[in-house]
Amino acid sequence: MKWHKDTLIVQTRGKGLYPFTEPVTRHIQAWSIGEGMCYLYIQHTSASLLISESYDPTAKIDLETFLEKIAPENQPWYRHTLEGPDDSSSHIRAMLTPVHLAIPIDNGELSLGTWQGIYLFEHRTHAQHRQVLLRCLELFS
Amino acid sequence: MKWHKDTLIVQTRGKGLYPFTEPVTRHIQAWSIGEGMCYLYIQHTSASLLISESYDPTAKIDLETFLEKIAPENQPWYRHTLEGPDDSSSHIRAMLTPVHLAIPIDNGELSLGTWQGIYLFEHRTHAQHRQVLLRCLELFS
Amino acid sequence: MKWHKDTLIVQTRGKGLYPFTEPVTRHIQAWSIGEGMCYLYIQHTSASLLISESYDPTAKIDLETFLEKIAPENQPWYRHTLEGPDDSSSHIRAMLTPVHLAIPIDNGELSLGTWQGIYLFEHRTHAQHRQVLLRCLELFS
Repeated sequence: MKWHKDTLIVQTRGKGLYPFTEPVTRHIQAWSIGEGMCYLYIQHTSASLLISESYDPTAKIDLETFLEKIAPENQPWYRHTLEGPDDSSSHIRAMLTPVHLAIPIDNGELSLGTWQGIYLFEHRTHAQHRQVLLRCLELFS
Repeated sequence: MKWHKDTLIVQTRGKGLYPFTEPVTRHIQAWSIGEGMCYLYIQHTSASLLISESYDPTAKIDLETFLEKIAPENQPWYRHTLEGPDDSSSHIRAMLTPVHLAIPIDNGELSLGTWQGIYLFEHRTHAQHRQVLLRCLELFS
Repeated sequence: MKWHKDTLIVQTRGKGLYPFTEPVTRHIQAWSIGEGMCYLYIQHTSASLLISESYDPTAKIDLETFLEKIAPENQPWYRHTLEGPDDSSSHIRAMLTPVHLAIPIDNGELSLGTWQGIYLFEHRTHAQHRQVLLRCLELFS
């Protein structure tokens, strides 16, 4: 049994879903993990992680539009506006989507479903430097 | 320490919560796990997992109605409609509910709360063949 | 490798976010865990866990207000009202927020982001006795 760790950095350029499968699968291959669990943890309160449809790009657009509709910026009842009009809406979106993921590794590969992709979900309007902790528990090599 | 794995198949018949506690507890007993962690991972983007009230069946109905209200089919702004009117609404519902679960195992049993049950949440209108990965980390037998 | 376990009790006094970081970090220090994973699991269907903004208290208020708006009590379509007007709204809120968390431990500390705090999210109106399972997998001391 082995424990592998690294920190993945993503530079975002405004709200939306950023593809994140590739850096994760690349690490698992580099570490030669045969069987185990892959954990992802995002160290932010205004961005999150998501596993969703990776084939048709319109799926991503609808997920973003949905969050714009239920958690828009600039609501008159927002009290948390210190860091701008996207402040509370970004925490609400982060509450509704995962801060961590745990995905099995089998036969040397991440066991995503056929249409699943990992995404980093940016909820801020402006560019951000995002940090995701990658941890892998290797059961067999 | 031991690693146990299996794939659980669920045949769904339209939208709703399908009880899923029994196949998980059956595996933990068959594997004779004393202490550890149980991981569930669903390999789909239009179905999810949920831990919720298992006693009163009306609780389930209200959860389903809530999702029908906030993420209905056939919205004029949906761009992702390739697989039918339930396409985007099913991805939105999957975004708002868990793709993976991690539940402690203690004294040979899954440590669910008194009223908790595990469910597979189908978000598609038509019958589907769903696949859930079950992984258990056995610390002590 | 070692497995640490305890049950954390929280006495709530109505709806809202209750700070929960301190009891978790205290246990990790007491157990002298150097590297590993920390798992939290709440054994209830009308309360949940959340990682969110811990600096500005108005952030918390907006998250609570948001849930009051999208999942209010006393909706005419609620069928699950056995335990009072907050019954279905509390299960809906629990569905939209995490039942479990998994956070890496590095250099003897929980790897929360700078602004992240752990909270227990109470969705019931009346005071409740809540139980959270804490499990830590220690890879290195």
